[in-house]
Amino acid sequence: MADAKEKNLGITVKKEEDMAEWYQQLCLKSELADYAPVKGCYILRPLGFALWEQIQAYFNKRMKYRGVKNAYFPLFIPESFFHKEATHAEGFNPEVAWIANKDEDSGERLAVRPTSETIIYDSYSKWLRSWRDLPIRINQWANVVRWETEATKLFLRSREFLWQEGHCVYENNVDCDREVELFLIEYKDLCEKLLAVPVIYGRKTEKEKFAGADYTLTIEAFMPDGKAIQCGTSHNLGQGFAKAFGMDFQDKEGNTQIPCQSSWGISTRLIGTAVMQHSDNKGLVLPPNFAPNKVVIVPIIFENTRDAVLGKCQEIKDALAHFEPILDDRDEYKPGWKFNEWELKGVPIRLELGPKDLEAGQVTAVVRDTGEKQYIKVEDLTAALPELLTAMHDRMFESARLHMESKIVDVDNLDDFKKAVEERKLIKTQFCGEIGCEEDIKENISGVTSRCIPLEGGEPKEGGKCFNCGKDSVCTIYFSKSY
Amino acid sequence: MADAKEKNLGITVKKEEDMAEWYQQLCLKSELADYAPVKGCYILRPLGFALWEQIQAYFNKRMKYRGVKNAYFPLFIPESFFHKEATHAEGFNPEVAWIANKDEDSGERLAVRPTSETIIYDSYSKWLRSWRDLPIRINQWANVVRWETEATKLFLRSREFLWQEGHCVYENNVDCDREVELFLIEYKDLCEKLLAVPVIYGRKTEKEKFAGADYTLTIEAFMPDGKAIQCGTSHNLGQGFAKAFGMDFQDKEGNTQIPCQSSWGISTRLIGTAVMQHSDNKGLVLPPNFAPNKVVIVPIIFENTRDAVLGKCQEIKDALAHFEPILDDRDEYKPGWKFNEWELKGVPIRLELGPKDLEAGQVTAVVRDTGEKQYIKVEDLTAALPELLTAMHDRMFESARLHMESKIVDVDNLDDFKKAVEERKLIKTQFCGEIGCEEDIKENISGVTSRCIPLEGGEPKEGGKCFNCGKDSVCTIYFSKSY
Repeated sequence: MADAKEKNLGITVKKEEDMAEWYQQLCLKSELADYAPVKGCYILRPLGFALWEQIQAYFNKRMKYRGVKNAYFPLFIPESFFHKEATHAEGFNPEVAWIANKDEDSGERLAVRPTSETIIYDSYSKWLRSWRDLPIRINQWANVVRWETEATKLFLRSREFLWQEGHCVYENNVDCDREVELFLIEYKDLCEKLLAVPVIYGRKTEKEKFAGADYTLTIEAFMPDGKAIQCGTSHNLGQGFAKAFGMDFQDKEGNTQIPCQSSWGISTRLIGTAVMQHSDNKGLVLPPNFAPNKVVIVPIIFENTRDAVLGKCQEIKDALAHFEPILDDRDEYKPGWKFNEWELKGVPIRLELGPKDLEAGQVTAVVRDTGEKQYIKVEDLTAALPELLTAMHDRMFESARLHMESKIVDVDNLDDFKKAVEERKLIKTQFCGEIGCEEDIKENISGVTSRCIPLEGGEPKEGGKCFNCGKDSVCTIYFSKSY
Repeated sequence: MADAKEKNLGITVKKEEDMAEWYQQLCLKSELADYAPVKGCYILRPLGFALWEQIQAYFNKRMKYRGVKNAYFPLFIPESFFHKEATHAEGFNPEVAWIANKDEDSGERLAVRPTSETIIYDSYSKWLRSWRDLPIRINQWANVVRWETEATKLFLRSREFLWQEGHCVYENNVDCDREVELFLIEYKDLCEKLLAVPVIYGRKTEKEKFAGADYTLTIEAFMPDGKAIQCGTSHNLGQGFAKAFGMDFQDKEGNTQIPCQSSWGISTRLIGTAVMQHSDNKGLVLPPNFAPNKVVIVPIIFENTRDAVLGKCQEIKDALAHFEPILDDRDEYKPGWKFNEWELKGVPIRLELGPKDLEAGQVTAVVRDTGEKQYIKVEDLTAALPELLTAMHDRMFESARLHMESKIVDVDNLDDFKKAVEERKLIKTQFCGEIGCEEDIKENISGVTSRCIPLEGGEPKEGGKCFNCGKDSVCTIYFSKSY
């Protein structure tokens, strides 16, 4: 029985041939995640969750720096709350999961939160009294549920996922605007610095903005198979929710004012994004800053040098504690097996140490992304590792950036647009900005959506016309297929 | 309107007079928590959530040291899973919240997790192949839902709460036993070292053990109003769940074996416990190791010395960065108002600095628990603070320990037992251990339950008889009222 369960370690299809199948095998075999016995849900296994913890640690630091505090609001939201902000209710209604048990006090149906604007702003309206209480900057790390009908894709599409949602309140729209952009740039930095993932960033169209927002900013990554992934959004909610929830405050002059609000979020999607961007046919390639363990040490053991080799490995492990090294001293596996396993699991640097290395006072270092080997003197390791890791990060980011750049194509008419969609390009074009025109595009051209009007370079071309309807362009915009 | 919302800062009842009302006002006015607009739920406001993060940070370190890895499993559990382990289903059935939407694949009802044994062990049965995979030690930090009908009590009783649940699998029961106790001792240490809360610790009776466990270990704190709080439990699940979920593994000899399992958990209850234990009529008294900010600096500002005083305060803040100091430089509040607010919020040490202090090169330090004042030279602060904090921790723990000790009463007959229950004592007595007898006690004596058979000193007294039924005693045990 146990034999029948023996796992096939390697990924059996190639990334360049069948990315969907490759991605699924990658996530399952590297033990990042597993499907759950509940339709639409998945399990973050320890390695997958450790990546989420890396994102949390990075972003908690950034939020603290920005004056944001973490809190926790209930999972259940009364139905009536959704209807207070009409657009919001409409946007989320089809995907809400409801609890069979009712709230005995109100007799209301309870939703499992798909997002928490309404329940959080109900509290804000109780807490907010005066300008002294502003700005409010609160975040929560939470699970959310959206009753998706599309097929589950590990990390990218599921009924339950983990995210953070920041909810801020400001005295006026100038402050609000500034921080809506500021948190977007924090997300962009996170992608670049932690995940080595380049993004385009800008504003969503009226059609694609968040239900209930004045406008939505977004960061979008671009995958090797020519599809974009929306990685994070930052919404200016204006005063809509504040009015719906009766929020006001006394300003310095004693007048009652209505505040402006924002919300912003990133999710476990980021894990899928980074993994799909960088990994290869041997398995995960984790960007060094993202990898929970930067180094794995694999001793090459022969009976007569066993203690000396293991002793040196332990010594190296202790010296490199800062890099959270794994010492793989399991007796039951051979070095070659271990090499494969740690490649599958994406550890950035493998250090091998056998009797010959011991004699030479060195280790063999293998870098995960290129597979390049080099010998490093044991006493040079602490200095050499940061350099190897930084170079690896830069290579990975640059390679992804070049890929994205190479896929951008300027298009100014419908025929070229359709061709570019088929070729899975990241299409840059002129657009009228009208909801009707965008709906027409969505209906007539399969699987393409607008991604964003870039913050830098989003102004319309001089004399530019909408590629679809021919009206005057109001912006330069990206379209593509997407996850 | 804003005026009507002005908050009454102080707590208006005394802890010693009406602890329930005092506790509620304490939690609300210190802004630890707030009631939610959903029956049975509450909000962890930033200060309350920061305390939860302190518990997470402490315990994540301990778990890492013990080889435990974090993961995340789905919120939803198929109904059939509960029925695989019959006792477990029975134990949880009345309190489960169900989702109105069904699983389209199985047509099954889905529960919102009240605890995750079943859904986690379903995965374990897929993942576990061989002795090489053991032990499995996985933890998740998650929200859980139990559809309580008793009144909500902030942190102590609610329909949704946050917790961690550890789930381990071992080759044999010897390993399992050892670690069931080990994680209990970790919990005891957490209470003592982080929360300055003394606990009794031991085994639950057959009647009170976890639904589906072979046995349950527990830690129990004892509150100033004479009621115990169960603070954490560690269960030896034996092979019951393993058999129910078809878990087995190949041992070193190639034979198929059934593993042994444990689960263990602590929750946001710990926040309520520490807060109720230590706080006073002025507000929170946070144990120094638990407090997110150990120090608050309040400048005493006069116009002509403003810059110098603020400059020195900033300098002190930077030098004490390790203690996460708050510098309260708000212009809109007077020092006296600030003193009250930070006392309400329980910051362990307040440093005051005015023009006279500046001249004397000192600060006035006030310790939260005793209110004692002293002058400390600015250059001595870094050395003096750890001493003040350690002394405060020790005082708080010792005071709680003495209170608990003073409430323990040895009882050997039913009349004395009833009297001790009325006097809200922590009753130590002899017990037959039989479920029937314990049910009889519960029925006839209002509000008392067995707490635990202590790990140290739980053996029966020589010739001892059960205080209730007169049969031979099998253990020394604690009974009391409880939250």
